[in-house]
Amino acid sequence: MPNYKETYLTPKTELIKRIKDFQSMMQTEDLDGALISQSADIVYFCGTYQDLHLYIPAAGKPVIMIRRNIDRFRTDSKLDDYPVIKLRKFSEIIRNIKEHDLPVPKRLGLELDVIPASVYLKYKQLFAGADLIDCSSLIRRQRAIKSDYEIARTKETAKMMDNIFNALPSIIKPGKSEFELAGDIEKIARREGHQGLIKTRGFNAEFYFGQLLSGPNSAMSSYFDGPINGIGLYPEFPFGPGEKIIEREEPVLFDYVGAKHGYIVDITRTFAIGEAPDMIDNAYKVAEEIQQVILAKALPCMPAGHLYDLAFEQAQKHGLTDYFMGAPYPVSFVGHGVGLELNELPVLAKGVNTPLEAGMIMAIEPKFVFPGIGGVGLENTFVMSNTGLKKLCSFPDQTIIRL
Amino acid sequence: MPNYKETYLTPKTELIKRIKDFQSMMQTEDLDGALISQSADIVYFCGTYQDLHLYIPAAGKPVIMIRRNIDRFRTDSKLDDYPVIKLRKFSEIIRNIKEHDLPVPKRLGLELDVIPASVYLKYKQLFAGADLIDCSSLIRRQRAIKSDYEIARTKETAKMMDNIFNALPSIIKPGKSEFELAGDIEKIARREGHQGLIKTRGFNAEFYFGQLLSGPNSAMSSYFDGPINGIGLYPEFPFGPGEKIIEREEPVLFDYVGAKHGYIVDITRTFAIGEAPDMIDNAYKVAEEIQQVILAKALPCMPAGHLYDLAFEQAQKHGLTDYFMGAPYPVSFVGHGVGLELNELPVLAKGVNTPLEAGMIMAIEPKFVFPGIGGVGLENTFVMSNTGLKKLCSFPDQTIIRL
Repeated sequence: MPNYKETYLTPKTELIKRIKDFQSMMQTEDLDGALISQSADIVYFCGTYQDLHLYIPAAGKPVIMIRRNIDRFRTDSKLDDYPVIKLRKFSEIIRNIKEHDLPVPKRLGLELDVIPASVYLKYKQLFAGADLIDCSSLIRRQRAIKSDYEIARTKETAKMMDNIFNALPSIIKPGKSEFELAGDIEKIARREGHQGLIKTRGFNAEFYFGQLLSGPNSAMSSYFDGPINGIGLYPEFPFGPGEKIIEREEPVLFDYVGAKHGYIVDITRTFAIGEAPDMIDNAYKVAEEIQQVILAKALPCMPAGHLYDLAFEQAQKHGLTDYFMGAPYPVSFVGHGVGLELNELPVLAKGVNTPLEAGMIMAIEPKFVFPGIGGVGLENTFVMSNTGLKKLCSFPDQTIIRL
Repeated sequence: MPNYKETYLTPKTELIKRIKDFQSMMQTEDLDGALISQSADIVYFCGTYQDLHLYIPAAGKPVIMIRRNIDRFRTDSKLDDYPVIKLRKFSEIIRNIKEHDLPVPKRLGLELDVIPASVYLKYKQLFAGADLIDCSSLIRRQRAIKSDYEIARTKETAKMMDNIFNALPSIIKPGKSEFELAGDIEKIARREGHQGLIKTRGFNAEFYFGQLLSGPNSAMSSYFDGPINGIGLYPEFPFGPGEKIIEREEPVLFDYVGAKHGYIVDITRTFAIGEAPDMIDNAYKVAEEIQQVILAKALPCMPAGHLYDLAFEQAQKHGLTDYFMGAPYPVSFVGHGVGLELNELPVLAKGVNTPLEAGMIMAIEPKFVFPGIGGVGLENTFVMSNTGLKKLCSFPDQTIIRL
């Protein structure tokens, strides 16, 4: 059977540490165990995804119950210390837990934010009498702090995004449509090893690569919880690049999400062929200033919401609050964690007290939207160290790039 | 604000008919109303997606409650006879129902197969005492029968897939990797107006374009409920094309999903540069024969499972049952409905008694998998008419295409 290169597999020590750290969190929260099945969480704990239930007891060895392809799991995951068994029927889960000398949980963690209601109702019947408790908040808190391995993987994604962005100036041409240009760029991305799929946690959070928008389209919002969403090709998927032809003297916003070996980097630049309108130019300078202020001040222990406040204050100083982070439907954050999913913790939103910590990887995206005219902004992905934020991409962000 | 062309909007009569038909089904099932929020179902009833709750009472006017972008809904949906209001808080849903002179439902339909458990628990509190009943099976049954409008849209997607497949023979070259070639093809697809995103109903049903696989990789299965899934680029997304270099004298399986204006067409062809191994060649002929037998016999009123039986009998006749529809993890179906989602009804699976009906659009995909050697097959998307199945794509399928 074909196989991945050894270096593509997440090391066993890494996976075991993730499981043990999660067990400690469960003990603190008095959970007896957690039954995990969402694909990003499975990738986090197992290093790969298969259709499986991972039962992690608060203490002792996890049990891995696979619905479909047990062989692929054995070749693609280094998690070989734990029992890996075939799950024929959903109802066998409890028997499998018992057979591996683990107590049947009375307080069971489930990913209540993502598992469907119908599945929840089956668990409820199966674990009759047990308290079913959301454990996604624990997993998401743990996943917010990246290991050295995860940071190294994310740096590979950042390198890929640099390569993609370096190709942009030569392919952005007036007279091309947004979606045509998007196809050109996505081809480069795929050649660089982009996985295509971008995982976004939650219901209906449908996402495809990101935004490549020009002029008024770069001021459009839609269903997605971000400042700028684009018009899209048609009403059935009202998101991302549309049919508009890119012209001179207008902002061309390029907000693309990179994903390689699972790990995400989010980056935005604003281009202009010729001069951008003054309003766009000025707002871009404020976005840069916001990034500088945040870079100068962000440190571990600072509440995540403080970065939003810093950004908002700068916008206020320049009289731009009406356009800050979207208009007329602004979002209340200036950034977000990224990792195996696009929308990880921390959320850099107003009022969020979660302290920043070393190891967090965050996209910070000060943006301004002028309805009918265009959107403009800057986004970089940073890793928090003990001494502050470090930028992961090296593509320049000093100014609007004039082609 | 930028806008779509008028012809891109789903006609009002179409949308109103969909809602009225669903109301009739709810009356038969004794539901008082349904609260709908999943993106594909919203696109079906509204012609576009926004973050909203659509309350459809069993009788009377629906209420559309929008969380975010009410302006986009007004421009992108023709549903302007019904109240469209801003939903500030989840808890306002009941008040909004009452304010529009509708009774608070005692038997409420919810999309239990897709809404997250945490959202279900909020509904349970909000509609205290009401029976919360899965209405996805009703919606999916209704959506299985396509209107003339939907068939016309799907034909546009089929035309797009013909254009993409016509480009293939000139770009499939030995020495190229699967993922590189995938990038080339996806660029063509995007230029043809492919929306990128492929909606697949259900938890963890992550999908990206499809399969472009060669030799042993075309025999790989993974987490996805399909006969052939590919190796993928790395364990974190073990699906689709991988790093393998395409060689001469091996099968190159190309199973891609087209999506345009929301509507999906699924098509598979097997190529070979030079001669394919005999085993592959022979199995391909059986796949063709299966398609012919199904085409000759399929008629409205026939149980969906009968098409699987017909396919299986042919496989049996040629001694190929061990390889039929995947090995060693075969799926139990030979086809599936397609529409706004890839995995619609009917499922052409063993034992399914659902009668086939005129208006159903189905992908039929007889495939054979020889582990370690390769996979081979043929897939077309058909619409059922009163006189039988009609193929939607015109790209030839007579034989393995030799380049």
